[in-house]
Amino acid sequence: MRRFVVLAALLTLTIAIYGQRPEPKLTTTAAFDASTIPPYRGDHPKVYSWIDAHQPQHLAALQRWLKQPSISAQSVGITEMASMLRDDLKSLGFKESEVVPTAGHPGVFGWYDAGAKKTLVVYLMYDVQPVEPEAWQVKPFDGALVDTALGKVVMARGAQNQKGPERAFFNTLESIIAVDGKLPINLLVIAEGEEELSSPHMPDLVAKYETRIKSSNAVGVFFPMSTQDPSGTVNLFLGVKGLVYFELEAKGDERGGPTRSEVHGSYRALIDSPVLRLTQAIASMTSPDGNTILVDHYYDSIRQPNDEEQRLYNAMLPSWTAHEGALREGLGAKKWIDNWTGVESLLHQLQDTTLNVDGIWGGYSGTGPKTILPHKATAKMDSRLVPDQTPEEALRLIRQHLNRHGFDDLEIRLLGGYPPAQSSVNAPMIRTGIGVYNKYKLAPAIAPRLAGSAPYYLFTQRLGLPMLAGGIGHGSGAHGPNEYLVIEPKAGSTVAGLAQIEKFYADLVYAFAE
Amino acid sequence: MRRFVVLAALLTLTIAIYGQRPEPKLTTTAAFDASTIPPYRGDHPKVYSWIDAHQPQHLAALQRWLKQPSISAQSVGITEMASMLRDDLKSLGFKESEVVPTAGHPGVFGWYDAGAKKTLVVYLMYDVQPVEPEAWQVKPFDGALVDTALGKVVMARGAQNQKGPERAFFNTLESIIAVDGKLPINLLVIAEGEEELSSPHMPDLVAKYETRIKSSNAVGVFFPMSTQDPSGTVNLFLGVKGLVYFELEAKGDERGGPTRSEVHGSYRALIDSPVLRLTQAIASMTSPDGNTILVDHYYDSIRQPNDEEQRLYNAMLPSWTAHEGALREGLGAKKWIDNWTGVESLLHQLQDTTLNVDGIWGGYSGTGPKTILPHKATAKMDSRLVPDQTPEEALRLIRQHLNRHGFDDLEIRLLGGYPPAQSSVNAPMIRTGIGVYNKYKLAPAIAPRLAGSAPYYLFTQRLGLPMLAGGIGHGSGAHGPNEYLVIEPKAGSTVAGLAQIEKFYADLVYAFAE
Repeated sequence: MRRFVVLAALLTLTIAIYGQRPEPKLTTTAAFDASTIPPYRGDHPKVYSWIDAHQPQHLAALQRWLKQPSISAQSVGITEMASMLRDDLKSLGFKESEVVPTAGHPGVFGWYDAGAKKTLVVYLMYDVQPVEPEAWQVKPFDGALVDTALGKVVMARGAQNQKGPERAFFNTLESIIAVDGKLPINLLVIAEGEEELSSPHMPDLVAKYETRIKSSNAVGVFFPMSTQDPSGTVNLFLGVKGLVYFELEAKGDERGGPTRSEVHGSYRALIDSPVLRLTQAIASMTSPDGNTILVDHYYDSIRQPNDEEQRLYNAMLPSWTAHEGALREGLGAKKWIDNWTGVESLLHQLQDTTLNVDGIWGGYSGTGPKTILPHKATAKMDSRLVPDQTPEEALRLIRQHLNRHGFDDLEIRLLGGYPPAQSSVNAPMIRTGIGVYNKYKLAPAIAPRLAGSAPYYLFTQRLGLPMLAGGIGHGSGAHGPNEYLVIEPKAGSTVAGLAQIEKFYADLVYAFAE
Repeated sequence: MRRFVVLAALLTLTIAIYGQRPEPKLTTTAAFDASTIPPYRGDHPKVYSWIDAHQPQHLAALQRWLKQPSISAQSVGITEMASMLRDDLKSLGFKESEVVPTAGHPGVFGWYDAGAKKTLVVYLMYDVQPVEPEAWQVKPFDGALVDTALGKVVMARGAQNQKGPERAFFNTLESIIAVDGKLPINLLVIAEGEEELSSPHMPDLVAKYETRIKSSNAVGVFFPMSTQDPSGTVNLFLGVKGLVYFELEAKGDERGGPTRSEVHGSYRALIDSPVLRLTQAIASMTSPDGNTILVDHYYDSIRQPNDEEQRLYNAMLPSWTAHEGALREGLGAKKWIDNWTGVESLLHQLQDTTLNVDGIWGGYSGTGPKTILPHKATAKMDSRLVPDQTPEEALRLIRQHLNRHGFDDLEIRLLGGYPPAQSSVNAPMIRTGIGVYNKYKLAPAIAPRLAGSAPYYLFTQRLGLPMLAGGIGHGSGAHGPNEYLVIEPKAGSTVAGLAQIEKFYADLVYAFAE
């Protein structure tokens, strides 16, 4: 009887609660056609030849950046990497190049005066994620070259995210200047060393140069990125999800639990458990499978995909469907949530907010049993945000949820966050970029956003500029072990190697200048 | 409206589920009176004098044991400590003394042939808990002497649990032999090096010597223990709770989640989170406050306190009530669960089963944010068992609960366990022990059991012997930092110092022999 009552109550609960979760839907079958945008007609053979002739030096420059650790979360190598970036700008002939102090890790600013009418704003990040060296097949800061099924790759932290593509772009700038004497467009570079910390001081950096940027006749913001997948398909992302990242901590206090240190586990009969409090609090935020967020109103501000987004999804779908199996395999996952495939998995990946536990710890984690009652437990958690969520509102709802469920004693420490950002596929800068892809017959699968996060809202919302995160080439393993960027693809591959990456950047720079 | 439905459903759920938890109750006000047991009349002035005259040597011998690490969970110093114990038995004149291999850490066996009719079985543990050195005010394996508010103490891992009292007992044996030429009773020593691992091979050790013990005319089993609290009150425990200790692990598998390693956190939109699965599974086992176990039938086998237990509780109550504030303060807790006091806290501490998380870990726990989706998460968990629970049934119910709630993919790894154990206060050996306490006008507060756990069921249930875990003196900090045993109490204290501890043991040995 008791079991029946429990099941009936659970059913009621389930129906009451689960109605909240939005299911992203398409209402049109019309698809955006990137090939209708005219291909870029420019040709720069002297620059291409220079690039080919200097590949050893270019690879060495790229490895030089990768050998310099710059782990923002652990303050490893930050000063050295910021200086290296500043010095490289100076070597390229930037009129201004300086390390810019912030309340956290410094930024780097650069101004290249080409005497041109137009300016390209270049956003860079010089920091990388921490590493778990034991999981790597090479030392993560050796800049090692490794032969793989895809060809020769450079395997190192930052190879793909983001120092590899960024230094390749610098190699391009160096080559254009060597051939032409100068660049065809002014460059305004803003680099940060805290992207992997959720960019806490990027707003300060943008604010500092806001007036200069607004009076610079900027065509938009460019972020060098290798956007091909292993099959050579180009994926172009017009934006990013937002993020809110926080620590959630339960510890003994005046309401219960050990306050000073762990105590003998036998006192569990009399003393509350902060670890159990933390697991209860986290568990209260999701359905048992972890995939529906049960925070009241958390989904309220999320809108369905608009017409432009739907057209982009329809265009992406064949490529997504063809490659999602390889993506899943590459990630070591046997299935997506709820066995989604095709349009379902595509829409969920790019339209869904998430709740994730990046780490959890408390008490004894050594070998064998140790019978203690720990006095605190902590989790690192994040939520990816989609339009029109904001980090402020997401955090407010989570705090409100915890308070309403009796978890007001748990502390939330905000570690960073920003709203989502997006450029229109019809912005002139984006169309110019697509034209360059079309020159190489690499009409991109264009996504309205990346499932990852970056502070692009500063450019798209605050400065009102379009932003292109683009380029060719392929890498993977960002944030995990064995991160790589392909340098010399195997024969027959349509993945670009380093020289091709650099030539593509040259066309982009000339195209933006026109 | 939705909120109303949710609240109504939650209320139904609460009523349906919470009925399970048993509230321990007393049905008599009669109290056991330890002072009615005649005090021990023996007097052994030559032995007492010898003990006083050799305190420097005795303290040095005790420190020698404490300086030898013997952390069973980490296999640190185990061989050395077992050898030291064997050699000390040999030095005392034990006819047999040997290190006894097991499938885990070895035991130590000793046989002292006094030519006496009676035999005392002595149970010892030579292992200690791991340490977190940064939380200690001294090095945990230095055997440091520290001046505290209680007087001079030896502060070291094992000072109280259990090498301090054990080596003090050896000092007593040495003194009796020095004065009398031999002990008044045969001794059969069984020591294990895995008590802190839940004694996985203690059953094998007992089985090996079962026939010898049964034919030895054993009066019972003795375990040296300092049982005074900081005020000098003696607490005598006639038994222990049982224990089941296990690891619970969620990881990516064919049903979802990353299977090989962590992946970039942005894929959380498509991939299940093993960390969230673990928190959901743990949370499903308790009420939101963590203190009511929601595992079906978990409380079914627990009986209310019987008449003997109730009389003991009634006798303990004044002392418990007077000292529970100091105990709570010593543990750094501001309140007990649900603000229990007096008889409620006493009964819950000794009559309740528990569910505890000793440790939890998964993903990134370093500085700052790292956005990953971890591929596994693990918790160490234990449950203390009271009559008539068994570890086998407790584990079966937990597995069944997880399976019924859809967590059949989570792995349980059993690390150890045993049932509770208890001797009757009316057993001759226990009455003899109480008589020695009465000689010193330290009529003990007698508890039917300790809230901690030990494999005493092997003696009480398997061998059918009474067991006395007794002695005087005070220590604290077992399993936590700054563990200590008082060596020289401050003036005016009724806490016994090392010399008094040893004299008390001498009386006990003579009393058992009579």
